Amino acid sequence: MASSSGAPVLGILGGGQLGRMTALAAIPMGVRVRFLVPKPSGSVDGLGEVTVADWTDLDVLRTFAASCSAITVESEWAPADLLVQAAPDVALWPRPETLRLIRHKGRQNQTLADAGLPLPDFELCSNLDDALAAAERFGYPVILKQYTHSYDGYGNATARTPDDLRAAWPDLAGADGLLVEAFVRFKQELTVLVARHPDGSHVTYPVAYTEQRDHRCHAVVVPADIPEATAEAARRVGLAAVEAVGGVGITAVELFETGDGRILVNELAPRPHNTGHYSIEACYASQFENHARAVLGWPLGSPDLRVAVAVMINVLGEREGVTQSNIEDALAVSGVGVHLYGKADVRPKRKMGHVTATGTDPAEVRARAERAASLITL
Amino acid sequence: MASSSGAPVLGILGGGQLGRMTALAAIPMGVRVRFLVPKPSGSVDGLGEVTVADWTDLDVLRTFAASCSAITVESEWAPADLLVQAAPDVALWPRPETLRLIRHKGRQNQTLADAGLPLPDFELCSNLDDALAAAERFGYPVILKQYTHSYDGYGNATARTPDDLRAAWPDLAGADGLLVEAFVRFKQELTVLVARHPDGSHVTYPVAYTEQRDHRCHAVVVPADIPEATAEAARRVGLAAVEAVGGVGITAVELFETGDGRILVNELAPRPHNTGHYSIEACYASQFENHARAVLGWPLGSPDLRVAVAVMINVLGEREGVTQSNIEDALAVSGVGVHLYGKADVRPKRKMGHVTATGTDPAEVRARAERAASLITL
Repeated sequence: MASSSGAPVLGILGGGQLGRMTALAAIPMGVRVRFLVPKPSGSVDGLGEVTVADWTDLDVLRTFAASCSAITVESEWAPADLLVQAAPDVALWPRPETLRLIRHKGRQNQTLADAGLPLPDFELCSNLDDALAAAERFGYPVILKQYTHSYDGYGNATARTPDDLRAAWPDLAGADGLLVEAFVRFKQELTVLVARHPDGSHVTYPVAYTEQRDHRCHAVVVPADIPEATAEAARRVGLAAVEAVGGVGITAVELFETGDGRILVNELAPRPHNTGHYSIEACYASQFENHARAVLGWPLGSPDLRVAVAVMINVLGEREGVTQSNIEDALAVSGVGVHLYGKADVRPKRKMGHVTATGTDPAEVRARAERAASLITL
Repeated sequence: MASSSGAPVLGILGGGQLGRMTALAAIPMGVRVRFLVPKPSGSVDGLGEVTVADWTDLDVLRTFAASCSAITVESEWAPADLLVQAAPDVALWPRPETLRLIRHKGRQNQTLADAGLPLPDFELCSNLDDALAAAERFGYPVILKQYTHSYDGYGNATARTPDDLRAAWPDLAGADGLLVEAFVRFKQELTVLVARHPDGSHVTYPVAYTEQRDHRCHAVVVPADIPEATAEAARRVGLAAVEAVGGVGITAVELFETGDGRILVNELAPRPHNTGHYSIEACYASQFENHARAVLGWPLGSPDLRVAVAVMINVLGEREGVTQSNIEDALAVSGVGVHLYGKADVRPKRKMGHVTATGTDPAEVRARAERAASLITL
């Protein structure tokens, strides 16, 4: 359904920074944005029309669906299954099947492996004995992952010995067990973002280098400093992974580049991704714009860089309390886009914003981005 | 005053496309935006908090001012004088004195001339005889301009003979007369945008070439194809003009380049300007971002181009009725930013949106922009 003004209406389940930035990219194209959120969110306050309600209530979902031309989710944990139950004909992208698949790390890996994609060695282990046997086969250390809710250092562990594995099992194993993965001595982590239209057409963003600190994304550098053949392989693997899970809209594919130049899939996210924020400043069409375009069934925009180099640095919370942001010093650093997410409360390590510097010399651009990010107080 | 969330609040008097795009640039920096508008406006619906009220009511203005950290106006016709009367300590930029000056084409010209800026020959004529004498002195044809509300082909006329002048006088002359200007056989029209901070610091955008069709801006090409010395002169004149009127935030300076390479000031606009829309895609900090920064008293961002060439084409209404926009074909043109302003109603020649193409080859970029603009139906 279109709005009374004739404008298409993009519905978003969720109200964090990804929904916020998707709205900021959709509105310029004449799109109205509506959010359904289970609790108030500073990030989308005063941006689009926000419904705060029990989003597991089928009536709430039915009413919301009736007011939207197309709907997307901000995270794989939004109630997509219930939405489709409440409104079977809704134009919801990505589809609940894709979200279910990606939510479960075991099914995700199995689906990608079945499609012939390169992954670290892994095994879905339903009991401790199977896990110990798999670890023996891969050789220690191994990575143990909860099937669901493992991210940013949570829900996974490195086992260096059988005793480590036994100790971690009760915490990480669900009713159906857990995932054991061979430890990859990767050279670097890369990400490929794919924007895919419901009709299967797609565009692939440049390969990004991502740098973690303390299990969290700290920096993203684009283009990644890799040989063209590696970049091509990464883009090919990324696209094949997204097609294997039927992703529509933006799907992020996190990759390992190994010391011997192989590309392995680490994991997928079925939505705009932290490693694609640089695209707001750096690409003809940002990941958020292309996500909105795909979900609305519109032609995709060019993912190409319109600058030589972009570096994104995350701004994380460093204390607990009410946000009191000061970005003036950061704004004084030239050629940097400063983004705050409007979150009312700050917590240590909470993603509060990011900065993106663009330019020509990678070292200079990175220094500028790091400097601006370091000058923001929250 | 900051919002309850601690975020600074930018107030905007007005709710058209300029307010809309200023909000879209301010929100990413963590700013809350509030609009005060005399009647509902599709352009800012669902974007920030919109108060629809009688904005000539001092109580309304006082309440609005109390809820904002700083306030700006979307046009020189917003009730800035009343706002300052209602809330004398309000951080309002630009100042009412600047707006008053620019609103009156006679005072504007006189102020610029007094500051030594180059303008077409002109005279403020309080009666018909003075006007006829001035025209005789300049030589026909001359341009007659209402002191106020002359824009986009309205409120002015070309007089080729004394009879033309006599015929136009009753329509155009106010109680204090009208402005007679010598006709300038310009080679091309240029614009310089200056972003100026309340403390006087400033940045100047690249010189833009602007092309009119039927008295309306059709295309803007950046950088303008002019010698570096001409560009330098244009930027110097632009900055001096803005300083002469005390502009804060974005002030646009429309210029003529004459056949013999001189730069003359045509007129000023004390706000973000149609000829600066290209900066959203093309500059490190867009005109809207720098307008918000200046009004909030924040450091200004770089106005430099991060692409080689940008071309903006306006999308005007072609019929009367309810907007039914279709931008899918335009979105299929690669490397083009498509902007619709969310206006509920379309009218012939109404500014409904614009597109900006970026790239390296001016002719190719222009062709892409023209093609995308021509494919939008409203």
